[in-house]
Amino acid sequence: MKVALLAPVAWRTPPRHYGPWEQITSLIAEGLVECGVDVTLFATLDSQTAGALDGVCPHGYAEDPALDGRVWEALHVAHALSRSGEFDVVHNHLDWLPLAFAAHVRAPMVTTVHGFSDSRIVPAYARAGSAYVSISDADRRPELDYVATVHHGIDMAALPFSAVGGEDLVVLGRIHPDKGTAVAIDIARRAGRRLVICGIVQDERYFAERVQPHVDGDRVRYLGSVGPRQRAEVLGSAAALLHPVAFDEPFGLAVVEAMACGTPVVTYPRGAMPEVVDEGVTGYLVDGPAAAAAAVERAAGLDRGACRATAQRRFSAARMVADYLTVYRRLLG
Amino acid sequence: MKVALLAPVAWRTPPRHYGPWEQITSLIAEGLVECGVDVTLFATLDSQTAGALDGVCPHGYAEDPALDGRVWEALHVAHALSRSGEFDVVHNHLDWLPLAFAAHVRAPMVTTVHGFSDSRIVPAYARAGSAYVSISDADRRPELDYVATVHHGIDMAALPFSAVGGEDLVVLGRIHPDKGTAVAIDIARRAGRRLVICGIVQDERYFAERVQPHVDGDRVRYLGSVGPRQRAEVLGSAAALLHPVAFDEPFGLAVVEAMACGTPVVTYPRGAMPEVVDEGVTGYLVDGPAAAAAAVERAAGLDRGACRATAQRRFSAARMVADYLTVYRRLLG
Repeated sequence: MKVALLAPVAWRTPPRHYGPWEQITSLIAEGLVECGVDVTLFATLDSQTAGALDGVCPHGYAEDPALDGRVWEALHVAHALSRSGEFDVVHNHLDWLPLAFAAHVRAPMVTTVHGFSDSRIVPAYARAGSAYVSISDADRRPELDYVATVHHGIDMAALPFSAVGGEDLVVLGRIHPDKGTAVAIDIARRAGRRLVICGIVQDERYFAERVQPHVDGDRVRYLGSVGPRQRAEVLGSAAALLHPVAFDEPFGLAVVEAMACGTPVVTYPRGAMPEVVDEGVTGYLVDGPAAAAAAVERAAGLDRGACRATAQRRFSAARMVADYLTVYRRLLG
Repeated sequence: MKVALLAPVAWRTPPRHYGPWEQITSLIAEGLVECGVDVTLFATLDSQTAGALDGVCPHGYAEDPALDGRVWEALHVAHALSRSGEFDVVHNHLDWLPLAFAAHVRAPMVTTVHGFSDSRIVPAYARAGSAYVSISDADRRPELDYVATVHHGIDMAALPFSAVGGEDLVVLGRIHPDKGTAVAIDIARRAGRRLVICGIVQDERYFAERVQPHVDGDRVRYLGSVGPRQRAEVLGSAAALLHPVAFDEPFGLAVVEAMACGTPVVTYPRGAMPEVVDEGVTGYLVDGPAAAAAAVERAAGLDRGACRATAQRRFSAARMVADYLTVYRRLLG
C-alpha cells in the first residue's frame, strides 16, 4: 500500500518542542513504515522520517517569521496534491485547504480532523470528497460523515514509566484561557502543592496578567515549552496532572502523556475528557477548582502502574497505526 | 478564443461601491465580450456579466462576516482551476493563491499583479508557471518576468465630462495613511479651499484620530464610500483631486477617474504617478503639502477638456481590453 501523509508545515515533523498535529502525523508515518507500508511524508524539508520525505517548505513557518504561512501552506498542499495520483490513499492532517482543493486529488482521501479552528471553515469540509476521522466521539460535527473515531496514540518509549512520581502538580499545554493555566494555579494553591507549568505562550496578555504574577520559582514554576525528553521527566515526577480545560477539547494529548508516565489526571468533564480518562483508574473528572483540589489527594493515591498499563492498552502509537490501517483498508474496499 | 477570468471574491463583480480588483476584472470581462471573445467570469454568484458566470461563493466575503475569506477564496480558486482545461487562457486577478496551485491549471495562465500585499508572497509568484502583467512599470519586481505592462482602463461612459468643475477639492480612496487623507486635509487648508473626502475606512484609528476631528460638514466633508454614480458627480464638480500618496502606489484608479471627469490632479511623484499623470496637462507632481497647496491654483487652471481627452486616449477600458487581447495572442503563440 502506498500512502501519502500530508503533515502541516507550521512546525517540523516531528516537532522539536510543540506541534501536536505534526507529532501525530509523525507517529503515524513511522508506525506505518514499521508495518511495511510505502509511506511518503509531505512535510517541511527539515523533517525526519524513515519513509520518503517530500515537500517544498524549507522549514516550519511558525519557526521563521520570513515565511508567510498561508503562502507556504498553499505551495505545500499544491505540491502534494500534484503527486496524489501516485498513491493508494492520501491522508490529510492539515485542515481545510486540501479539502477545498479535493477536486484536484487523484486518490481516495481521508482527513483526520484535528480540530475546528472556526465554524466558518465547515463549508470546506461539507463539500469535499474526503472521508473523515474524528479524534474523539465528542469532537464530531453533525454535518459531516465520519468513517471512524481514532483516538490519538503516543510514543510510549519516549514517555517511560515512573513508578514513584513526586509531590508536585503539573499543567502542560499552550498557555491560553482554553487550557485553564490560571485555574490550575488556583487548584494547586487550594491543594497546598507546588505547581510546574509547561507550554508555549499562545495568549501573551493572559500569560502576563493571570499566570506570570504567580510564578515565584518555588510554589509556581514556569519551564517554558518543553521538548520530548524534559516532558517525560516533568510528567513522570509529578503527583498528578491538572487539566482544567475551559473548552470542549477535541482530544488532550498531555493527559495521555501523563498517564504513560504513570501520572494520574485531574480534569473537567468537557470535550473528549470523559472518553480519555478512566474515572478512578487514570484520574478524576470533577467540576470546578474546589472539587479539583479535593480530587488531587485521591488522584495521587491511584495506582501509577495501572495508569501506565491503561495508556499502553488504549493510547499507544501502535494501536493508533493499526486503527488507521483499518480505515485505509475500508476506504480501499 | 475562450477566456476564463478569475475575479477576487471579496466583493461582487462589478463591485457595488468599493473593490478595485473586481472593478478592473469586470471591465475586462465586459470589454472582451463586446469584442466577441467567449468569456467565463469566475466570481461571486451575485455578480453580473454579459459573459458566462460561474463560481461557488454566494456573495463577497467582505460583504458578509459569516463567510471566512480564506476558505471561500480557496473553494473559488479550486473550482475555477478544475474547469481550466476548457479554456485557451486563464486570466488571474486574485493574487497568489491560483499561482500556488499553478501546477493544477490546464491552460496558459496570465496573472495581472494588482499589487503585492507583502513581499513574503513573492515565493508563490517566483515558482508559478504564469505570465505576469504589471499595472505600471513602477510596480515591477526584479524577480519576476513580465510579458507586458497594461495600465488600467476605466468606464468612460460612467464618468462623464464636466466642463466646469467647481471650487472645492476632493480626495478619493480608502482612508488609510498610505493614501494621505490627513495630508489632503492639510493641503486644502493651506490652499484655502473646501475638501470633500470619499472612501471606505480601512484604518479605523487613523480615521478617528487624524481625519474625523477635521470633518465639520463645511470646510471638510466626509461622504463615506461612494458608488459609481456619486463618484462621477463628486469628481466632476471638483477643482482638483488631491492624491498625496505616502506609498509607491501601483496604479491609482481615482487619479484616472478624476481626469475622465475633466478634473486635474495634484499628487506626489511616487509609484505609478509619474506614468499616469501628464505634468502640466492632467495635473502636477509635487513634493510635500506646501508645494501641493501652491500647485492647486495651477491645476485648477488646466484645460479640463484636455484632461478628458488624455484619459480617453490613455485610460479607456477599450484600450485596456485591446492590450489584454494582445497579451493573450502573444501567449497563444
